[in-house]
Amino acid sequence: MSIRIGIAGYGNLGRGVECAIDQNKDMELVAVFTRRNPDTVKISTPGVKVYPMVDAVKMKDDIDVMILCGGSATDLPKQTPEIAENFNVIDSFDTHAVINEHFSAVDKAARQSGKVAVISVGWDPGMFSLSRIYANAILPEGQDYTFWGKGVSQGHSDAIRRVKGVKDAKQYTVPVSSALNAVRNGENPELSTRQKHTRECFVVAEEGADLEQIERDIKQMPNYFADYDTTVNFISEEELKKNHSTIPHGGFVFRSGKTGWNRENSHIIEYSLKLDSNPQFTASVLVAYARAAYRLNSEGKSGCMTVFDIAPAYLLAESGEQLRKKLL
Amino acid sequence: MSIRIGIAGYGNLGRGVECAIDQNKDMELVAVFTRRNPDTVKISTPGVKVYPMVDAVKMKDDIDVMILCGGSATDLPKQTPEIAENFNVIDSFDTHAVINEHFSAVDKAARQSGKVAVISVGWDPGMFSLSRIYANAILPEGQDYTFWGKGVSQGHSDAIRRVKGVKDAKQYTVPVSSALNAVRNGENPELSTRQKHTRECFVVAEEGADLEQIERDIKQMPNYFADYDTTVNFISEEELKKNHSTIPHGGFVFRSGKTGWNRENSHIIEYSLKLDSNPQFTASVLVAYARAAYRLNSEGKSGCMTVFDIAPAYLLAESGEQLRKKLL
Repeated sequence: MSIRIGIAGYGNLGRGVECAIDQNKDMELVAVFTRRNPDTVKISTPGVKVYPMVDAVKMKDDIDVMILCGGSATDLPKQTPEIAENFNVIDSFDTHAVINEHFSAVDKAARQSGKVAVISVGWDPGMFSLSRIYANAILPEGQDYTFWGKGVSQGHSDAIRRVKGVKDAKQYTVPVSSALNAVRNGENPELSTRQKHTRECFVVAEEGADLEQIERDIKQMPNYFADYDTTVNFISEEELKKNHSTIPHGGFVFRSGKTGWNRENSHIIEYSLKLDSNPQFTASVLVAYARAAYRLNSEGKSGCMTVFDIAPAYLLAESGEQLRKKLL
Repeated sequence: MSIRIGIAGYGNLGRGVECAIDQNKDMELVAVFTRRNPDTVKISTPGVKVYPMVDAVKMKDDIDVMILCGGSATDLPKQTPEIAENFNVIDSFDTHAVINEHFSAVDKAARQSGKVAVISVGWDPGMFSLSRIYANAILPEGQDYTFWGKGVSQGHSDAIRRVKGVKDAKQYTVPVSSALNAVRNGENPELSTRQKHTRECFVVAEEGADLEQIERDIKQMPNYFADYDTTVNFISEEELKKNHSTIPHGGFVFRSGKTGWNRENSHIIEYSLKLDSNPQFTASVLVAYARAAYRLNSEGKSGCMTVFDIAPAYLLAESGEQLRKKLL
């Protein structure tokens, strides 16, 4: 019997989850839930229906795991604890600063319902966090470095779109090669925000807009751009569509540590991702953890967990013996 | 109270474990066991004694976890199940082809004694296996690549030393850069043994030995060298000592996978290690898993496990809340 999955929220991430389910033969999509009018939402899986989000609870016996595909700012803090009252859930909550608060709220709901909730699943938090925890366990004395990109930052692109005179925009976060190489060579550099990443903006201006003013407004924007070396390129709407319509991303996690009685030996652990589609990759991680949530709950486990709390063997359908033979 | 560790076997790996314990404040070394005459074994930790291996069982109530530092060929297949009859144990068994047989033997002993045994801990098997299992879980459709080096292969160095006329030798396994880059660029190349690695040998010949014959004997050696592009450099004993006395190693694990309804998006996951000291790094992994074994056994778990079966949070002393705050 397949693991029956529900998708709550059908944007880029929800569409990615739908597609990832197609790549995992032990899973099937049962329903998609949306806050929009379900009639206006067309999905890609034949025979599967779209329902109003508020009706999700009616399907509590038909769905093994609900994958939440809403945003971290306003959707998930409310949705994840609510939906965990009736379902095993997975979310991609990524507001690092308040993860423990979110964990507590979700844990309370999931313990009461006897369900498993896995929060902050994706690549950062998610796979990057795993890289950091293993590397810190192995090399207790050392330094961590995380670089993001080259890739599209949705938040920074949105920020540019709010600038007066801007019609559309795309922002790429780019790690600085010389900084990457210094870390990779074990130089343990102290790096300022400006030394780690640059920001490249591709902007479509409204007709007659003041380009110099737009560039100044972007470059001086606090938090988003002021602390970075930012380049602003004005391009046509056609060019933006043609060359900047995909959502690539990626990044690098390093730990540089020392061993030996005099800490005379250096070790560099590096993990990196190069992703053509950020939402599809994130979705693929969510789906793997949905399998784990289902299996853990089947074993009687309940409560909130993160990637730190789940043994990797739970992520794959194969037996322990098969995994040892093939991957150990 | 500290986690009390015993070391069984005091070669390069055992010395590495001793040093790694010094870097983990929640652990203490209680005893070292050896098959040599204990009086001839000098260790680095003040106040800790060396005992004959056969007397280990007398200390079963004084040691929380025994870390086995013998070899996979003949030591561990016998030692790990035996010692698991009385202790939680960690080993670095690395004969990939027979890991499931070793698992079964150790599992039987550990279940009977109610102890936890973690086998095949290190970096390959170990951290590289973790990289493979997570990447396979996320990207079910894709290809795996593992490269080793640049680093010293003890087995190949030993093989050269058995060649007639050779006094001493060191062999480096070197990944082929063009192959690495093809994988990194998502070209999904089909790679033969020869295309993945080269072998660099540094050889000290005995006086009057036939150098051409030595070079031929090395390059034609089946399994070890015949399938590789091998270079043989004759050097003096002083040069070998001066430039080739350390034991560096490392390598790269890639998974290249596709997502999207038409599998139109590519993703590359890369994990790499650059290690000044292979035995010290391996030892650091063993010590982290010793902490996990102790904690799992304290929770009532028993039996044989691998890195696949252990949630990463068990590897560190910090609480779940601290880990989420610091590393998620």
